[in-house]
Amino acid sequence: MFQSSKSQPGSFWTVIPAGGSGTRLWPLSRPTRPKFLLPLTGERSLLQQTVDRLQPLAPAERTLVVCGPAHAAAIARQLPGLPEENILVEPSPKGSAPAIGLAAVLIARHDPEAVMGSFAADHDVTDLTAFEHAVRAAIVCARNEWLCTIGLNPARPETGYGYIERTEEVVASDENGTSFRTARFVEKPNLQTATDYVESGRFLWNASMFVWKVTTFLDEMSQLMPDLYAGLQTIGEAWDSPNRDRIVAQVWSGLAESTIDHGIMEHAPKVAVVPAEMGWSDVGDWHGLGELIEHDSVGNSVKGDLVQIESRNCVVWSETGRLVALIGQEDTVVVDTPDALLVIDRSRAQDVKRIVDELKRMKRSEVR
Amino acid sequence: MFQSSKSQPGSFWTVIPAGGSGTRLWPLSRPTRPKFLLPLTGERSLLQQTVDRLQPLAPAERTLVVCGPAHAAAIARQLPGLPEENILVEPSPKGSAPAIGLAAVLIARHDPEAVMGSFAADHDVTDLTAFEHAVRAAIVCARNEWLCTIGLNPARPETGYGYIERTEEVVASDENGTSFRTARFVEKPNLQTATDYVESGRFLWNASMFVWKVTTFLDEMSQLMPDLYAGLQTIGEAWDSPNRDRIVAQVWSGLAESTIDHGIMEHAPKVAVVPAEMGWSDVGDWHGLGELIEHDSVGNSVKGDLVQIESRNCVVWSETGRLVALIGQEDTVVVDTPDALLVIDRSRAQDVKRIVDELKRMKRSEVR
Repeated sequence: MFQSSKSQPGSFWTVIPAGGSGTRLWPLSRPTRPKFLLPLTGERSLLQQTVDRLQPLAPAERTLVVCGPAHAAAIARQLPGLPEENILVEPSPKGSAPAIGLAAVLIARHDPEAVMGSFAADHDVTDLTAFEHAVRAAIVCARNEWLCTIGLNPARPETGYGYIERTEEVVASDENGTSFRTARFVEKPNLQTATDYVESGRFLWNASMFVWKVTTFLDEMSQLMPDLYAGLQTIGEAWDSPNRDRIVAQVWSGLAESTIDHGIMEHAPKVAVVPAEMGWSDVGDWHGLGELIEHDSVGNSVKGDLVQIESRNCVVWSETGRLVALIGQEDTVVVDTPDALLVIDRSRAQDVKRIVDELKRMKRSEVR
Repeated sequence: MFQSSKSQPGSFWTVIPAGGSGTRLWPLSRPTRPKFLLPLTGERSLLQQTVDRLQPLAPAERTLVVCGPAHAAAIARQLPGLPEENILVEPSPKGSAPAIGLAAVLIARHDPEAVMGSFAADHDVTDLTAFEHAVRAAIVCARNEWLCTIGLNPARPETGYGYIERTEEVVASDENGTSFRTARFVEKPNLQTATDYVESGRFLWNASMFVWKVTTFLDEMSQLMPDLYAGLQTIGEAWDSPNRDRIVAQVWSGLAESTIDHGIMEHAPKVAVVPAEMGWSDVGDWHGLGELIEHDSVGNSVKGDLVQIESRNCVVWSETGRLVALIGQEDTVVVDTPDALLVIDRSRAQDVKRIVDELKRMKRSEVR
C-alpha cells in the first residue's frame, strides 16, 4: 500500500491526526473550514506547516494524515506531494485513540520495526530546530520500548491545557535532549492548581505529541484497549482487500470513542517525556492567535485593512477586504467574515465556544 | 412658479434646508448618502419624517426643500408628492443664511404676507402634537413682526448644541404656547457652562427652528447682511426667467458663507423664542441614535441580526444582513456596512468625526 519501499526498516513515520474544527476561532474556522486548513500564522495552512516542519524527519511517503471524509479532498489539494493512500479517512470521529491507532496498525503491517510520531495538524511551532531536536530525542527513547511524549515547559499557568508531571528518572539522553519517566498525566487544572504546577518545575504542557515504536504502542493497546485493538486489526487485514470500505465502515461504527491520554498514557507502565521549548502554541483562540501574528507599534495584531485612533492591543482579522475602523478600543477582537462578524474582548476569547454552541442550538448556517 | 395659487395670502410655508452629510454617523452616512436621506428612526427617512410632521401646518405645495445638486434626484424620489419646483437646488453649500434666504426671497415674490418656518431635514421629534403646538405659537409671534425660534428645554448639560437665553418678557401667548424675548444666542459651551445654563432655567437648546414673516426676515437681512440680500434679490428676479441657471451660478459663487445665527439672530432687535418639549434629538451620533431606536431587555439597540452573550447597552447597526456576534460587550457600537466596519465605545461617539477626517486625508473611498 504505502510507497515507502525505499525506506530502511525501523524508519521514522509521521502521523498527523487532522480533526476538530477549532470552535474558538469562529467565525473564521467552521466545521466545513477547520482550523488546520486555514493559513493563520503565515502563507501556508497550519496543516501544511505541520508537514513542513516534519519534512526533515520523515519524507512524504512516510507521512500519514488521518482525517474525516469531508476534508480528504481539501487535504489532498493542500498537500500535493502526499501520496493519496497516505490520507487515511476515518468514517466518523471517534477520538484520538482510534485515529492514531489506525495509522499505527497500517504502519506496523508495512514495517513492524517502524517508529511513529503523532503531531496535531493545527498547532504552531516557531523554533523548528528545537522541535526537530525534541523529536529526535523522543525517537531515541522510543527505540527502547518507551511510549514517549514531548512536553512543553509552561510559559504561564494556562488553564486551557492538560499537564504532564515528570519524575527525575532519566530514561534516555543525548545531544538532542533528555527523556524522563512521567509521574502522571493530568487534565486541565484550575488557576491555583496551574500556578502550583508551574512553580513546581515538574509539570509540562501536554501538546499531544507522541513518539513510539508501533509495536510498543500496539502491545500496550492490546492490553489496555483490547476491543479497539481487535477492531483495528480487523480493519488492517481488510485494508488492502476489495472489502476495505465495507469492513472499515462496519467495524469503525462499533468502536467506542476514546483518547490516547485516557486509554493508554495514563495507564501504561513505560511512559516518558522530553521537556522542550520550541515556541509552541495550540493557536487555540483569538487571543492566542493575536499573539502569534505580527503586531504594529501599539500592539494591534492585524490581518486586513485597519484604520484606528487611540486603539491598542486589538486583534483584527478581516476576510472581506473591508475597512475596519476602531476608535479608543483596547484588547478588542474583531473578526470579519462574509456572513458573520464577531466582537469580543481578548479576555473572553475562550467564550467563543459558548456563542458557537448557542448558534448550533439555533441551527444557524453561520456555524456550518 | 409655485403651485400654491389656492392658498390664502399670509399662509404658512415650510422650508427644509437639507444639507450636511452627518459625519458622526459614518460609515452609514456619507456625502453621497447623507443622514437626512436615511431611515434611521423608522421606515421613513429623517427628511420624509420632517415633511410628514409639518403636513398639518403646510401642504406639499407650500413646502420647499433646499439642497445641493447631488441630492435633488434622491429627494424628488423620496418625496413624490412634492412639486418639482419646490426643490430648490443651491449650486454649492454656503451655510444656512443663503439657503434659507433663497427660500424666503422666492416665497416673498409669491406672497409678501407669507409666514415661513425653517426646520432641519435630519432631526427627530417624537411628540408630534407638542411640535405642532410650538410652531403654531411661533406663528402667532411671527405675525407681530418678530423673528421667532423654538427652543427646547434642555434635558441634560449637552455640550454639542448651541443655547438660547430667554428673558421674562412675554411677546405672545395663547393656548399653543408662549414666546419670550431672547437675551442672546450662544455657541456650544463647555461642560461647566452647559451645567450652569441648565441650572439657570433660562437657557434653551437651539434646534435651528425659525419662524417669521418673510418680509420681517428680509428687512432684517437688508440691514444686517446687505450683500447677501442684494445677491438673493438678483437671483429672485432671474428665477422665473430663461437666464435662471446662469445668473444663479454667477451670483451664488460670489456669496460669502454665512449662518442665520451669526448673521441675523445674534443682532436683530426683535427676536423671540417659544420654549417647548417635544422629544427632540438631532440624531447627531451613534450614541444618540442608539437612544432613539428600540432597546432589548438588556439595553441593546439593534438593527440587524444580533446574537449576544452577556452584552448590554450596545448599539448594533448592520446594513449587510450578516450575523453580528458579541460576547461580554458593554456600551459598544458596531456599525456594519458593505465596505466599512466601525467599532467604538458609545463614549467615543463624537470622535467618529476624527476618523472620517483621517480617512478623507487618506483619500479613502469609504468616506465618499
